[in-house]
Amino acid sequence: MSILDRFSFNHATAKFWDQREAVEACARTGSGIGLWREPLQEMGVEASAKLVKDAGVSVTSLCRAGFFTDPTEEALADNRRAIDEAAAVGAPTLVLVSGPIQPGGTIDSAREGVKTALAELAPYALEQGVTLAIEPLHPMFASDRCVVTTLKESLDLAAPFDPAAVGVVVDTYHIWWDPEVWHGIERAGAEGRIASFQLADWITPLPAGVLTGRGQLGDGCIEMRRYLDAVDATGFDGPIEVELFNDALWARPGAEVFEETRAAFARVLE
Amino acid sequence: MSILDRFSFNHATAKFWDQREAVEACARTGSGIGLWREPLQEMGVEASAKLVKDAGVSVTSLCRAGFFTDPTEEALADNRRAIDEAAAVGAPTLVLVSGPIQPGGTIDSAREGVKTALAELAPYALEQGVTLAIEPLHPMFASDRCVVTTLKESLDLAAPFDPAAVGVVVDTYHIWWDPEVWHGIERAGAEGRIASFQLADWITPLPAGVLTGRGQLGDGCIEMRRYLDAVDATGFDGPIEVELFNDALWARPGAEVFEETRAAFARVLE
Repeated sequence: MSILDRFSFNHATAKFWDQREAVEACARTGSGIGLWREPLQEMGVEASAKLVKDAGVSVTSLCRAGFFTDPTEEALADNRRAIDEAAAVGAPTLVLVSGPIQPGGTIDSAREGVKTALAELAPYALEQGVTLAIEPLHPMFASDRCVVTTLKESLDLAAPFDPAAVGVVVDTYHIWWDPEVWHGIERAGAEGRIASFQLADWITPLPAGVLTGRGQLGDGCIEMRRYLDAVDATGFDGPIEVELFNDALWARPGAEVFEETRAAFARVLE
Repeated sequence: MSILDRFSFNHATAKFWDQREAVEACARTGSGIGLWREPLQEMGVEASAKLVKDAGVSVTSLCRAGFFTDPTEEALADNRRAIDEAAAVGAPTLVLVSGPIQPGGTIDSAREGVKTALAELAPYALEQGVTLAIEPLHPMFASDRCVVTTLKESLDLAAPFDPAAVGVVVDTYHIWWDPEVWHGIERAGAEGRIASFQLADWITPLPAGVLTGRGQLGDGCIEMRRYLDAVDATGFDGPIEVELFNDALWARPGAEVFEETRAAFARVLE
């Protein structure tokens, strides 16, 4: 077995590449795919489901829902739609980005909103056979994107729920700086919560706005192989997604980025 | 007693303002000052010491030393010089920014370097009556500036040493996102480690490179009054420095920035 058998290409790595072409590239190479809701909705949920089924491609996650730090009925309804979409395309995992601090609110009130939303959504996710995966984002996103910043915090939020309903995302880009990260991965595995394992490298300088600075595997300082070993040591043997938000990659042809990413993946992990 | 009696102006908030003018503004308003090594060396250590003494201004900290993730003799010698400078100007505290990941090294090897350097420097600091203050920096600086990212990590690094030799910096800008921050402050106080208390606000979007995005107090999402209450609840009653790295502030006249910062300080804390 080659490590490439576990490779999954997150569509955001080639954000402007046609979903059909991305799925076909994954089919040709025996890769999984991480889908995104916008291109999925653009093609249509049924057509997208048929596309991946006919191609025989495994959908490893759907990105992304969440943004429920103000857990309004509208926000919850959109999350339920996302659960439906994940179920329709056979994605076992729906990635959750928890959302920003609300106007007039605090980081604590936003975190309370996340708890409320999870309690509302977990039973429905379980019913649909989709695991909600709480993704801790790098603390530089804590005010405007995701108030959940560490693996420990994600695991504490997931703790009240069935691991089949609520898990966490282990994404190297967001957690590599954390002095408690190895303990967090061990705990995530022991509690059966690793619902998604994603890779991206940390490079500097960061671009303005910091969203699109994720580096190709091997270009930065993250010890990728060490993360693989730590995650696998917990008994995890699932797919490994590569998700890179990077303007320079996004400007290039998707097929080229796909091949380069696959090669970098094999290089840093083998 | 007014909260302004505890106000200290970190010179970096008006980076290009003449050190003499900054000290004079602090003298006129009964403020403390946080000095920086570069302007201090430019004026000369003795002349700087005479300046603050004659003005009757309290030096609350000297910024900054550290950068010893590769603890060479050269790096340690520079830190000893910084300790001497702090002692000369009567600064009770020398702020340490621990430094980047070294070429070919890992974040763990860099953290080991910090431990080694602290053990080398702590006895000398104690002898000179200067407390080394380990500053956890925001995790967005973890690769290229400071591998120490949380209050917990700073306290664990300080633990082997006399609190008079090694303490920590509580800087709102760097730690506000941390779900464990209130526990960290409580612990820092209980262990007698709060060697410096600094304020800056978190605003987005972050500029390219992310270094100079620190917001004026009240312009961002950090609950300043809550931090003051938490720090004071530990028994701390020392000075409160405002340190803002901000291109827009740096482009303006120092005297104006000083008055604006003092007013913002009073507004958010009273």
